[in-house]
Amino acid sequence: MSTPLRLGIAGLGTVGAGVIKIVQRHARLLEERGGRPVSISAVSARSRGKDRGVRLDDYAWEDDASVLAVRDDIDVFVELIGGEDGPALAATRAAIAAGKDVITANKAMMALHGQDLAEAAEKAGCVIRFEAAVAGGIPVVKALTEGLAGNEVTRVMGVMNGTCNYILTRMESAGLPYAEVFDEARKLGYLEADPTLDVGGIDAGHKLALLASIAFGTKVDFDAIEIEGIERVTIEDIEHAADMGYKVKLLGVAQMTGRGLEQRMSPCLVPDTSPLGQLENAMNMAVLEGDSVGQIVLRGAGAGEGPTASAVMSDVIDLSRGTRVSTFGRPAAGLIQAKPAGASAPAPYYLRMSLLDRPGALAKVATVLGEAGISIDRMRQYRHAASDAPVLIVTHKTARDALARALEGFAATGVVVGEPVALRIEDV
Amino acid sequence: MSTPLRLGIAGLGTVGAGVIKIVQRHARLLEERGGRPVSISAVSARSRGKDRGVRLDDYAWEDDASVLAVRDDIDVFVELIGGEDGPALAATRAAIAAGKDVITANKAMMALHGQDLAEAAEKAGCVIRFEAAVAGGIPVVKALTEGLAGNEVTRVMGVMNGTCNYILTRMESAGLPYAEVFDEARKLGYLEADPTLDVGGIDAGHKLALLASIAFGTKVDFDAIEIEGIERVTIEDIEHAADMGYKVKLLGVAQMTGRGLEQRMSPCLVPDTSPLGQLENAMNMAVLEGDSVGQIVLRGAGAGEGPTASAVMSDVIDLSRGTRVSTFGRPAAGLIQAKPAGASAPAPYYLRMSLLDRPGALAKVATVLGEAGISIDRMRQYRHAASDAPVLIVTHKTARDALARALEGFAATGVVVGEPVALRIEDV
Repeated sequence: MSTPLRLGIAGLGTVGAGVIKIVQRHARLLEERGGRPVSISAVSARSRGKDRGVRLDDYAWEDDASVLAVRDDIDVFVELIGGEDGPALAATRAAIAAGKDVITANKAMMALHGQDLAEAAEKAGCVIRFEAAVAGGIPVVKALTEGLAGNEVTRVMGVMNGTCNYILTRMESAGLPYAEVFDEARKLGYLEADPTLDVGGIDAGHKLALLASIAFGTKVDFDAIEIEGIERVTIEDIEHAADMGYKVKLLGVAQMTGRGLEQRMSPCLVPDTSPLGQLENAMNMAVLEGDSVGQIVLRGAGAGEGPTASAVMSDVIDLSRGTRVSTFGRPAAGLIQAKPAGASAPAPYYLRMSLLDRPGALAKVATVLGEAGISIDRMRQYRHAASDAPVLIVTHKTARDALARALEGFAATGVVVGEPVALRIEDV
Repeated sequence: MSTPLRLGIAGLGTVGAGVIKIVQRHARLLEERGGRPVSISAVSARSRGKDRGVRLDDYAWEDDASVLAVRDDIDVFVELIGGEDGPALAATRAAIAAGKDVITANKAMMALHGQDLAEAAEKAGCVIRFEAAVAGGIPVVKALTEGLAGNEVTRVMGVMNGTCNYILTRMESAGLPYAEVFDEARKLGYLEADPTLDVGGIDAGHKLALLASIAFGTKVDFDAIEIEGIERVTIEDIEHAADMGYKVKLLGVAQMTGRGLEQRMSPCLVPDTSPLGQLENAMNMAVLEGDSVGQIVLRGAGAGEGPTASAVMSDVIDLSRGTRVSTFGRPAAGLIQAKPAGASAPAPYYLRMSLLDRPGALAKVATVLGEAGISIDRMRQYRHAASDAPVLIVTHKTARDALARALEGFAATGVVVGEPVALRIEDV
């Protein structure tokens, strides 16, 4: 029998327990597929006594993940603690310094420290794999790093926070306002302890930053992502967008442009007939575009015990098989620091505003648009409710600064009530 | 600079030319990603003089693929000749005997000779990769072999012949009969020289056989696939299915059951709201289900120069990186010979028949169903046109033998005109 691949697992939450269950349940399958047995030497978590629904008796216990990480009897340090720094980062650094390979599900740590960690790993001759950090069970890191390796990647998009997608699709299906569905999601346990990570687009932004690095050979640059969460998406906009044939999605987009690397995570409109438009509930989707392959769409569960543990095990079997790919698909030292693109590329926009019920009000709005150089694709004015009337406009492709000029201009007309809403319509 | 990975490419059709274009265009990218340059030492095709839109001057020429396959200056034999045996098989065998790794896009050869070739390759210490053989640019072989390696796979499904999907969606969108759209497809160059490979479901069957082997650790068993093509799908059934909320797809399904391995490729109904139901034109889709990951859906172009060459290059970069996975994801000698399941698992069925305009006709049909133990989920009788009326029935889950009894029973009623149509409704 060949030498087993020996894991040390730090973090015994849902995902950690899920990984242990797979190792126990599928020992033979994993050995057949990986060419050697997978074993667990030691585990680590905050509280030893807690029942996690898995048998841990056969594994050594460490209170300190950093001690676990350097044990002689592990080949791979599996980091499932979470958190952008703290014990996860310390233990990962310790593992690399001790020459251990690392598998992690930690998007925050990789998005913020991935470059340093990848360089350290390469110097130490070990690898870091993070399939579970992006879009749960969908093998998107592998698809992009390996499956599309012959392509110049042109664009990467994704709906990569299941909670946000749940909230948005539930708002639409039940006709409920954001605050109400947010509370539902919290009660269902769908939200992180700090919900801003989810609804503020930060968690999805971490994932986008990782995909962008692989796609474009650039250093992970989370800070350069333009992030807007879903907190201000209203049921009115979801319903009006639906009327016009669109769905509202928290969509991440990364593309290399003449102006630099564009990375944004924001509520966008997508056609309701597109795969992204048809993605419901907590599902995730990644859309990868390459110069040879065209468009590849991957869909699956983005979170949860089984899917995330499945992704961890994909990395485990890769290491069993001797597959050793650079962290971001190329040597870390060669990744370039991309210039951020600044403003995003021109796109059609959806505009919604309330107009006072006055003669000439609509003409004023149209004049502002014309003066900003924005042409109108479609426009609808709804019947006046009380004193003001909702107006929807879908523009043709519009530069961001033209849009900003128009939004300023609306305020000066004296006929637009409150803040107009502007949502980008992504060409998917 | 590290040693290049040296390719010998046999077959310079669309895909061969596409591969050469990528190697020429993306030399630097391929070197960065693979950790070593990719070079082409020699090429081979039937006719040397033909203009293929790529520069071949730097490469040695061989008239005989089997001579190319064993050249000292190649590391990898790239087989893009096609055909289940003949020169492709001879050259592949020669390459393996000479210890060369093999990359092939040849689904027919792999479906019929994959087991022998894999065993020979493993004995010789080389690997065979065939990402391009299944679903073109979609990295589905990789997703299943590596991405889902921690899962017990429960079911694999796919729409894997773009021509058939084009024909079926075009029939529906244009309201045209099969024969007319078949002619269109032929004029557009969408059909193989022997169109039965496409519309008879054989090409898609080859792909299903390969995925089933990876999924279940079984020897490829193309002959055990129950295959039915799309030749008998009528515009009436497509339209009636649409009325009932379904699309007709040439769907491949492989699943391991208590009765053995079920593999079938046939026109099925799927809900029009499902990802499979929404797949239009020549696109391909693979649906992979595992015990941990749940359901993963992959969508992309299933054929064409760019997508297929992209898949070949994915295998090339894997070999550049030193990734060496067994042909079917486990050692070939350990693959088991699965017992074919015989009849497929019970499923709901769509039934269409024409009834004579006679009192009691519908009662007779309902009686036959009841006596066969088949219960009715939904039924529609349309207004009589001339002397007979179309009747549509969607059954609850029904065993195949019960269905067969009912179909026999209908014939004996004397009120059913012509052959009833029965299409399986797949639970996707």
